[in-house]
Amino acid sequence: MNQHASDAVEKVVIIGSGPAGWTAAIYAARANLNPICYVGVPKTDPSPILPGGQLMLTTEVENYPGFPDGVTGPEMMDKFQKQAERFGTRIVGEDIDSCDFSRRPFTLTTSSGATVKAHSVILATGAVANWLGLENEMRLARSGGGVSACAVCDGALPAFRDQVLAVVGGGDTAMEETSYLTKFARKVHVIHRRGEFRASKTMQQRVLESPKVEVQWHSQVVDVLGDEVISGIVLRDTRTGAKRELDVKGLFIAIGHTPATKFLKGSGIALDDKGYVLMPVAHRSNTNIEGVFVAGDVADAVYRQAITAAGMGCRAAIDAERWLADQGVH
Amino acid sequence: MNQHASDAVEKVVIIGSGPAGWTAAIYAARANLNPICYVGVPKTDPSPILPGGQLMLTTEVENYPGFPDGVTGPEMMDKFQKQAERFGTRIVGEDIDSCDFSRRPFTLTTSSGATVKAHSVILATGAVANWLGLENEMRLARSGGGVSACAVCDGALPAFRDQVLAVVGGGDTAMEETSYLTKFARKVHVIHRRGEFRASKTMQQRVLESPKVEVQWHSQVVDVLGDEVISGIVLRDTRTGAKRELDVKGLFIAIGHTPATKFLKGSGIALDDKGYVLMPVAHRSNTNIEGVFVAGDVADAVYRQAITAAGMGCRAAIDAERWLADQGVH
Repeated sequence: MNQHASDAVEKVVIIGSGPAGWTAAIYAARANLNPICYVGVPKTDPSPILPGGQLMLTTEVENYPGFPDGVTGPEMMDKFQKQAERFGTRIVGEDIDSCDFSRRPFTLTTSSGATVKAHSVILATGAVANWLGLENEMRLARSGGGVSACAVCDGALPAFRDQVLAVVGGGDTAMEETSYLTKFARKVHVIHRRGEFRASKTMQQRVLESPKVEVQWHSQVVDVLGDEVISGIVLRDTRTGAKRELDVKGLFIAIGHTPATKFLKGSGIALDDKGYVLMPVAHRSNTNIEGVFVAGDVADAVYRQAITAAGMGCRAAIDAERWLADQGVH
Repeated sequence: MNQHASDAVEKVVIIGSGPAGWTAAIYAARANLNPICYVGVPKTDPSPILPGGQLMLTTEVENYPGFPDGVTGPEMMDKFQKQAERFGTRIVGEDIDSCDFSRRPFTLTTSSGATVKAHSVILATGAVANWLGLENEMRLARSGGGVSACAVCDGALPAFRDQVLAVVGGGDTAMEETSYLTKFARKVHVIHRRGEFRASKTMQQRVLESPKVEVQWHSQVVDVLGDEVISGIVLRDTRTGAKRELDVKGLFIAIGHTPATKFLKGSGIALDDKGYVLMPVAHRSNTNIEGVFVAGDVADAVYRQAITAAGMGCRAAIDAERWLADQGVH
């Protein structure tokens, strides 16, 4: 295992480089904390984890306030990064593989085996949408061809208005996404592998009562059709194996998210049963460990928007700055 | 009292037009809720409450993520408004003077005496910084001439680096602002009317121990000097009345904020002892009244940043949308 020659202790280490991480970096840098940001290494298995976060998979962002004509996800993240760099954020293209929060200063181990010591840490590694894992699904998701994992982000796009759409899933999120899409769509097919939903009764009822919704029970999406934009999906009956095509102009995958918290295993950071970082203090960015703060989708299974993640990143940096000042670290 | 001819009930009424209000409008409009936004009427007494919020008083914003080269406050609010309008937000240049939340749909009364009925309401009226009320203070604050009410927003600006600055106040916020400014400034004078601070002992200690801090006890700022940028302040001894000048290149007013919640008097909305709207559900935008949500500085005495307010506005709109769907309002 390598060891940095220097015994220097970082004031604040930020892990992650989506809206939460970059915003934390902007605020920490402007507070003269000389932050260092571990932006990660691209990974594709099982789900794409990318430096820049989920927005790197997003073509058009219409709902991040400040861009009335829209902005692409990668362009937006480039602006965030430039702003963080402008104020002096140092950027390292490595992951953090493990964390020792048992004593202060904390010790983090990077993917190259190096260690870094830190007075405070901001966790902002995000969460990745779960995908079906089909080649054409990922191709059309990346190109903005009508496949998405976020109805609130993309449902209002003109391409989906008054069209026939499909949602894959059977939990609360799938019901919410379906309910949201019925505002725009002519019709929404809900595709579910089983004969009943896992979602709560009230959420099921809202969806099942909508005249715009048709449920395809015992059905699994096995392919996505269309060259540049989606034209349909291939369904397989989970009981008989029979295949059939369904014409849809949009496909929303709502089978959950996976927060990027594996590297926290054994660190003592409290997670919920789905792996999200718990935030024990209302309306603050604290974790259960003093000096470790959290921001963005890694702690948010509810809103998951660029703007909410950015707001949380700001909170984490301000909380870290004030906590460090209390500790006499300037 | 006028009454709108129509008995139409709005799905969501947004009160306020800072980052929180506009972001709520962007998200509500994209969710097809056809929001109506009451942006207020300019007022100057006792503190300037403006359509567009506190950012209308801000010349350069360097920390709102997405603008690596900075943006002026009014320009930024113009972009927010355009984005809200692009998705169909209706804008009314009136205040809401009172709210009846005792039965649903809610009834709001505007400053012209009209009433509007609403299934849900998002409170986003903000808070205004308290100022000393000096003519030269307000002139230099508006022109970006070195007078500010937010060290976190403005402290890192080049004009303040390695300069002698002054902070007015004696509470926790004044201590935080002073502590923050010592990172950049050569010296920070803390100006306080009394002979001791109201701030907590630990926060006082941090400030009093800093070699960069000098406290001017029993002192009151009675004038601000400088034509285009501040060159000094005039202090009056609160015991003897004697006046003297102090050369400073920046003046930070930290004598508290006043949340704009007068219009909520008698509405049943729970406020804290300083008048901020309480948020009883951790990490959510709910108020104590079902169907009424809150966002931005009117519920935030801690962070008060454009990006945090915008994140809260997004949460409020998503929470309102989901709550309305539960109520069968689409």
